[in-house]
Amino acid sequence: MPCRVYLLAHTPDPDSLVAAAARICYSAAAVSDLLERESDHLSASLLRKLRRSGHHSPFEHASFTFGVDGLSRVASHQLVRHRLASYSQQSQRYVEINEAQVVVPPSIASNSEALALFQRWAAAAFEVYTSLLALGVEAEDARFILPHGWETRLVLTMNARELHHFFELRLCRRAQWEIRELARLMLIECRKVAPVTFEIAGPPCVGEGRCHESRSCGKPYGNMEDLIRNDE
Amino acid sequence: MPCRVYLLAHTPDPDSLVAAAARICYSAAAVSDLLERESDHLSASLLRKLRRSGHHSPFEHASFTFGVDGLSRVASHQLVRHRLASYSQQSQRYVEINEAQVVVPPSIASNSEALALFQRWAAAAFEVYTSLLALGVEAEDARFILPHGWETRLVLTMNARELHHFFELRLCRRAQWEIRELARLMLIECRKVAPVTFEIAGPPCVGEGRCHESRSCGKPYGNMEDLIRNDE
Amino acid sequence: MPCRVYLLAHTPDPDSLVAAAARICYSAAAVSDLLERESDHLSASLLRKLRRSGHHSPFEHASFTFGVDGLSRVASHQLVRHRLASYSQQSQRYVEINEAQVVVPPSIASNSEALALFQRWAAAAFEVYTSLLALGVEAEDARFILPHGWETRLVLTMNARELHHFFELRLCRRAQWEIRELARLMLIECRKVAPVTFEIAGPPCVGEGRCHESRSCGKPYGNMEDLIRNDE
Amino acid sequence: MPCRVYLLAHTPDPDSLVAAAARICYSAAAVSDLLERESDHLSASLLRKLRRSGHHSPFEHASFTFGVDGLSRVASHQLVRHRLASYSQQSQRYVEINEAQVVVPPSIASNSEALALFQRWAAAAFEVYTSLLALGVEAEDARFILPHGWETRLVLTMNARELHHFFELRLCRRAQWEIRELARLMLIECRKVAPVTFEIAGPPCVGEGRCHESRSCGKPYGNMEDLIRNDE
Repeated sequence: MPCRVYLLAHTPDPDSLVAAAARICYSAAAVSDLLERESDHLSASLLRKLRRSGHHSPFEHASFTFGVDGLSRVASHQLVRHRLASYSQQSQRYVEINEAQVVVPPSIASNSEALALFQRWAAAAFEVYTSLLALGVEAEDARFILPHGWETRLVLTMNARELHHFFELRLCRRAQWEIRELARLMLIECRKVAPVTFEIAGPPCVGEGRCHESRSCGKPYGNMEDLIRNDE
Repeated sequence: MPCRVYLLAHTPDPDSLVAAAARICYSAAAVSDLLERESDHLSASLLRKLRRSGHHSPFEHASFTFGVDGLSRVASHQLVRHRLASYSQQSQRYVEINEAQVVVPPSIASNSEALALFQRWAAAAFEVYTSLLALGVEAEDARFILPHGWETRLVLTMNARELHHFFELRLCRRAQWEIRELARLMLIECRKVAPVTFEIAGPPCVGEGRCHESRSCGKPYGNMEDLIRNDE
Repeated sequence: MPCRVYLLAHTPDPDSLVAAAARICYSAAAVSDLLERESDHLSASLLRKLRRSGHHSPFEHASFTFGVDGLSRVASHQLVRHRLASYSQQSQRYVEINEAQVVVPPSIASNSEALALFQRWAAAAFEVYTSLLALGVEAEDARFILPHGWETRLVLTMNARELHHFFELRLCRRAQWEIRELARLMLIECRKVAPVTFEIAGPPCVGEGRCHESRSCGKPYGNMEDLIRNDE
Repeated sequence: MPCRVYLLAHTPDPDSLVAAAARICYSAAAVSDLLERESDHLSASLLRKLRRSGHHSPFEHASFTFGVDGLSRVASHQLVRHRLASYSQQSQRYVEINEAQVVVPPSIASNSEALALFQRWAAAAFEVYTSLLALGVEAEDARFILPHGWETRLVLTMNARELHHFFELRLCRRAQWEIRELARLMLIECRKVAPVTFEIAGPPCVGEGRCHESRSCGKPYGNMEDLIRNDE
């Protein structure tokens, strides 16, 4: 089962806030004028212009908080390498684990021999974990035997600028499959509440129609629908 | 006239979100459980415990966006030194200035001779600026003659953890008066929407009852009411 | 075997550089004057004053790069949560693993029954990994079965201000034993090349003689020698 | 007179360190192996590949510290907006100013009428500043009347990744002239000590042969020599 993503909170009306912040930079308007909101049509046009011309900083004002269940620690270790973000992750030091919970990669799930081997060992590892606890080892040390695929859960917050960067890197077909799935689910949520800000997102094959990777995947996304659809 | 501060946007229900994120770290609860919100009473108790014990990271999930009018560039230069924040500031390169707008420090406003001198020269500086424009100098270069006290406006976003750090430094009586006034107005807004998160804030004389400065001001704040009141 | 730490590179003469940067803030000296270095005695006195009064920013100019071998992915996942730092970590996606390499926690190493169990299963996990590879599973997916205690290696860079923060948190007796050992070995290296900057470092029991933890360990460090000595 | 830039300190042998950090990511080499340095030729080839393919993180391990004299506060206000950097700037609160020191924009220096007006007022502003001090106003408030072009000095540290970002934005002909000159002088220093890392740097017209600006300057740089030469 893939991870589950919940948009727990976000800056209200993100598209309008970003547009308002951008207008402060380039006009004589006072902040008090921003409180009278201009038409959605003008905001959308401004946001598109900012994205195209690389003026990304106004997008930082809109913030999105996600809850994630069922992510492997393989993926969470990659995720937290994004430093312009905030994380609260379930502690394996303080929280004892009560059941075998491990993420199965699709390549293993679809290979019956590999799957049997993987599941047998994952169950065995959990038994070793509980045996170590029974021998007086603390949870924080017993977990050294748990597989990398073990599930974790976390709350993360990123602003829209960093989210764009995250989607650019992690929605590429060459990204690891699990963090790619996480990114896809996050993008779907973002597009519901900030449709203009996330109108276009993802790797350069979507946004710019070209690839920067030294070894391309050879299967560029044609458009946003392609990217959003779970086709694998 | 001091600066004007508007809370343009914020994460909805910040106190609850921070408490929910903290619970993920230390309990076996799934993220989906967080969606059923627990009682405000329990959240408040958890937030106070986090603050006391120095576990600040859950406060990062709550984000606050302010608009500020009428701040001097003296103060904005100090403000943007806080790097864990996002800024959109009115450009003096692209926006031509149409009237003399300068912040008058209280120590000058209360000294009639100094005030007369200051105002005469602030007006004169603006005339030099317009003369330079008339001589064909671009606005981005003519502004080199405008006084530091010139007004700017900006939109800034900080999360609750960084806001606490900002209030700790900038609400100290030894901070520059203008950024202190900005911090005071921001704190007043924060307390309206996140009363538990910002129940206690400000320099160590308020939070810990002691001063870390090598040269103390000698007038510690007795409590939050002291700090919030505009007594100067 | 605990991790191995190498100081791969550092800003030359860190104590002097930090002192020079601090002098720019508070004196009329030109930068060109900084090139004539003042006496070590005066620098040391200035650095001590900065540390005591909480003016930490000049310490950011001194940067330290470490190589680390033999760290578990349990510890590396914690380590990379420090966001004001730079990391290059060995990829488990691209680098296939050729031998069983797992970190054994001391509490397990000293418990013969637990140790036998742990080692047997660590070896078995590696066999499962190689079997999965043989079944056509990619290394990036097969690793889901490897234990958390698996060894990784990385290069990390932190500046002296962030190092102080890292040492404050991670040298506390309540920190996880492995990241604490990493921090101890890093501090030993730092003190060789920046003796004044790291004259005092570590948790508040060393620097301030008091503890901020809600549940204290009850065994405060008496002094730096206590902290540096490997007594466990 | 333009600003003066001094490279005060840097990570020794930056090109080799970056290459070593990159090798850790993609090979089975232990950190201890990195201590035996491989040939410069192989390192150069690796660095070029990293730059081309957008794998920028290894460049963060190399750090550069500059001293800058004679920069206007117009430019320093822009500079400190780069948040992934460290700054120590001369305080106008604590350091009283003893002589008129103002940066004259080239467009004013080359316009005799504008220059006479600018210099007369800059001198007058300094007289007003000293008169305010004489009337009992503190330096921190009297400076509100000093022109934006007033000189400041500072120490700044950036790593090579952030420097590349800085050069990309600030060496564009559409950047403000003074921060562009600062960037040019910094790049010249960087190329002396990290020739491969900074072999190619600057705006996209140099690195990629194309422009991302919505309004191009129309005068793309042909190559690095063009960019480095002071032709204006």
